[in-house]
Amino acid sequence: MKKFTCVEDLHNLQSALQEAAEIKQNRFKFDSLGKNKTLLMIFFNSSLRTRLSTQKAASNLGMNVIVLDINQGAWQLETERGVIMDGDKPEHLLEAIPVMGCYCDIIGVRSFAQFKDRDYDYNEVILNQFIKYSGKPVFSMEAATRHPLQSFADLITIEEYKKTDKPKVVMSWAPHPKALPQAVPNSFAEWMNATDYDFVITHPKGYELDPSFVGKAKVEYNQMKALEEADFVYAKNWAAYSGDNYGKVLNMDRSWTISEKHMAVTNNAYFMHCLPVRRNMIVTDDVIESNQSIVIPEAANREISATVVLKRLIESL
Amino acid sequence: MKKFTCVEDLHNLQSALQEAAEIKQNRFKFDSLGKNKTLLMIFFNSSLRTRLSTQKAASNLGMNVIVLDINQGAWQLETERGVIMDGDKPEHLLEAIPVMGCYCDIIGVRSFAQFKDRDYDYNEVILNQFIKYSGKPVFSMEAATRHPLQSFADLITIEEYKKTDKPKVVMSWAPHPKALPQAVPNSFAEWMNATDYDFVITHPKGYELDPSFVGKAKVEYNQMKALEEADFVYAKNWAAYSGDNYGKVLNMDRSWTISEKHMAVTNNAYFMHCLPVRRNMIVTDDVIESNQSIVIPEAANREISATVVLKRLIESL
Amino acid sequence: MKKFTCVEDLHNLQSALQEAAEIKQNRFKFDSLGKNKTLLMIFFNSSLRTRLSTQKAASNLGMNVIVLDINQGAWQLETERGVIMDGDKPEHLLEAIPVMGCYCDIIGVRSFAQFKDRDYDYNEVILNQFIKYSGKPVFSMEAATRHPLQSFADLITIEEYKKTDKPKVVMSWAPHPKALPQAVPNSFAEWMNATDYDFVITHPKGYELDPSFVGKAKVEYNQMKALEEADFVYAKNWAAYSGDNYGKVLNMDRSWTISEKHMAVTNNAYFMHCLPVRRNMIVTDDVIESNQSIVIPEAANREISATVVLKRLIESL
Repeated sequence: MKKFTCVEDLHNLQSALQEAAEIKQNRFKFDSLGKNKTLLMIFFNSSLRTRLSTQKAASNLGMNVIVLDINQGAWQLETERGVIMDGDKPEHLLEAIPVMGCYCDIIGVRSFAQFKDRDYDYNEVILNQFIKYSGKPVFSMEAATRHPLQSFADLITIEEYKKTDKPKVVMSWAPHPKALPQAVPNSFAEWMNATDYDFVITHPKGYELDPSFVGKAKVEYNQMKALEEADFVYAKNWAAYSGDNYGKVLNMDRSWTISEKHMAVTNNAYFMHCLPVRRNMIVTDDVIESNQSIVIPEAANREISATVVLKRLIESL
Repeated sequence: MKKFTCVEDLHNLQSALQEAAEIKQNRFKFDSLGKNKTLLMIFFNSSLRTRLSTQKAASNLGMNVIVLDINQGAWQLETERGVIMDGDKPEHLLEAIPVMGCYCDIIGVRSFAQFKDRDYDYNEVILNQFIKYSGKPVFSMEAATRHPLQSFADLITIEEYKKTDKPKVVMSWAPHPKALPQAVPNSFAEWMNATDYDFVITHPKGYELDPSFVGKAKVEYNQMKALEEADFVYAKNWAAYSGDNYGKVLNMDRSWTISEKHMAVTNNAYFMHCLPVRRNMIVTDDVIESNQSIVIPEAANREISATVVLKRLIESL
Repeated sequence: MKKFTCVEDLHNLQSALQEAAEIKQNRFKFDSLGKNKTLLMIFFNSSLRTRLSTQKAASNLGMNVIVLDINQGAWQLETERGVIMDGDKPEHLLEAIPVMGCYCDIIGVRSFAQFKDRDYDYNEVILNQFIKYSGKPVFSMEAATRHPLQSFADLITIEEYKKTDKPKVVMSWAPHPKALPQAVPNSFAEWMNATDYDFVITHPKGYELDPSFVGKAKVEYNQMKALEEADFVYAKNWAAYSGDNYGKVLNMDRSWTISEKHMAVTNNAYFMHCLPVRRNMIVTDDVIESNQSIVIPEAANREISATVVLKRLIESL
């Protein structure tokens, strides 16, 4: 595996899940695989879970880790040819990125959507610059349009908890006071579509996701109807994607907050969320504290998904 | 040892001191004990000595280390149930802390007194949240009311330098331009009270410490009288503890600055301070540069105390 | 080797170059030499290349690394005796630096010229404080007047690419919008003077470097004449050194920008720059993208020079 930015990069999902199970059994099984291999983690956006879990995964494999925090404003790389660089931009990407690649074996990049220009965001400009120019395998630690380490951990978690071969999984929009990127819901949809689960997306009108991520999923605007007989409820907020509303919060309708009333129509579903979660906006205290809430095991699986991904990238060197 | 926040956590002080001496002889004696164990160091307050010495200690044991700097203002965790989280606080402690615990084996926390609310400070709210919710062994890298890694290093140092079985140790308040927490003096008193040393505390009226830390120590308001025949002089500033004066600087009386005049009445005492120290406020140049000053060996013992503590926490896993 | 701040510290340059070649062949050849050795990297100025390459070099040798970022403004150490420290400076260097030395085996320091006081800069006050008071081997990660890890990497690169025993190497000033220190050109001159290359410096009037660094180099004010038959063109901007102009940008004459016209008079020279580089100020797109541009291999050799230096410092312990 030469890069990891989306579900396709894993190729055979079943074998990846088997590898995850094997590593979860003994997360230090490959603890000398990463000897004398250096991971460079580059953060354009701050991170808690992703940083800790990826650093832990690298340790599991015996890698060295270098963390680089780049203030988003500070990444003023010139990208054009012919520009006389006498202004704010001190370096051209054609020097900056290959140089970073010199001092490491694998690069992780976190770079969120900025909600200024949908095309810029959805073209994954920064992530793709690293893939094109660094000369090293690159993986996403959440990019503008996808968060594949999260989605892989979500899938591992569903596989661990599912009681039927083809569970019904419902991803429900829920309210939030701030405008959040679509990376997590896009990515979750992409990964669910790669399984044979019964996958349903529900959200208020206006929150339609990019059709290329929605794919074969069923979209149901009636939240309660969508949740009927669900085996897993995956709650998440996102800002609007469509047209001029791109990046906007259209409403904060708290009837969409996942409550016991919502869970009651499910098939005693498990509750999932990628965290951090705002209680009583996304989900009530009662639901997230219930026995059916698996948000902590889901977070813990971030270490497992990152270990599998790093292992495969090392093996490709 | 499942936590380390105060002297009681070490149980048998003599065996801990023996372990310290053994590690000082060969600080890499247990360098494979920490293999595949990850230490998460969480700083709510900045740190130089504690960060370096604890990270060095973890290296001595072969651990992996992840450092997390949390701006104090940024740690806005919701702690209540039922709150609709539509404001500044992005996460509830019931999710945030267990998640951090997922990605490590041991957690160190530094969180100072804030001097806004004495009860909040003295209840060690943040430290105790980590103990209660992280699911992992927690140790203090200086909390609101104690600094046990410092006190343990202080005790190791006294044991190394003492010339009699029961030395006279005098902790003296000294002036400082800013309001400093009571963590170091509280903790030093607690540790001295756990020995059979002759322990005396001296300070101006108004600087009385919490009686539960003063314990069986003798309090002497006359500094010169307190220092007579001392074997060790432990200088430290602290802000007032009592009543409405909590967290206030009551005076900066430089007659309390430890000078040669003060040292002259001692039994050729050693001079100690936890550092950083303001010269000619806390102590004169002449005293801190004298042969009797042991502030650098005392600082160096921070590596030893941290190695013992981490070793014991690893052994409990 | 007990310190590394200038070319003399390497003693025999030929044996250092042989060691570099040996390490480049297998950069993990000495990967257990640094076991249980801790490198403390102290940054008074921000860093990308130096930080990554030095951290990678330490990993190559199996060292532990602690990175300390010190905001330049924050390093308010008192240096005088007798001062009553009741102001902004919380610590005296006589305590602060020995304490840092307690928790590591080797110290790297980055501290740039501040352009406020030429004597202060050229006396390398901060670097020398660490050498004098830390008790540990110290190396420069770019100081006020030299950048020896860069110059060593430059020399390694020239040795790899040179086609004749005594190549002609031309260091050319080039325009830049900001005032840059002389550390890189001083240091490059010092290292070139330690070889038997034909070394020429060219710059506009007013940009004369400190004569002690210029040494036996030929200074030629006519840039085109200087470049004739050059085998290597080393471009770099620097601010004025002389007299009242110290630290000033005297002009931004873009006729000095290295272009194809300049390269045409050379002996098909290789183009070098320490990076980051401002295109079309220092050098045109065409030249830096040409086959003769070796800026990326030059940057990659930073890992090699740092590995040699750390190896020698470890061997001296």
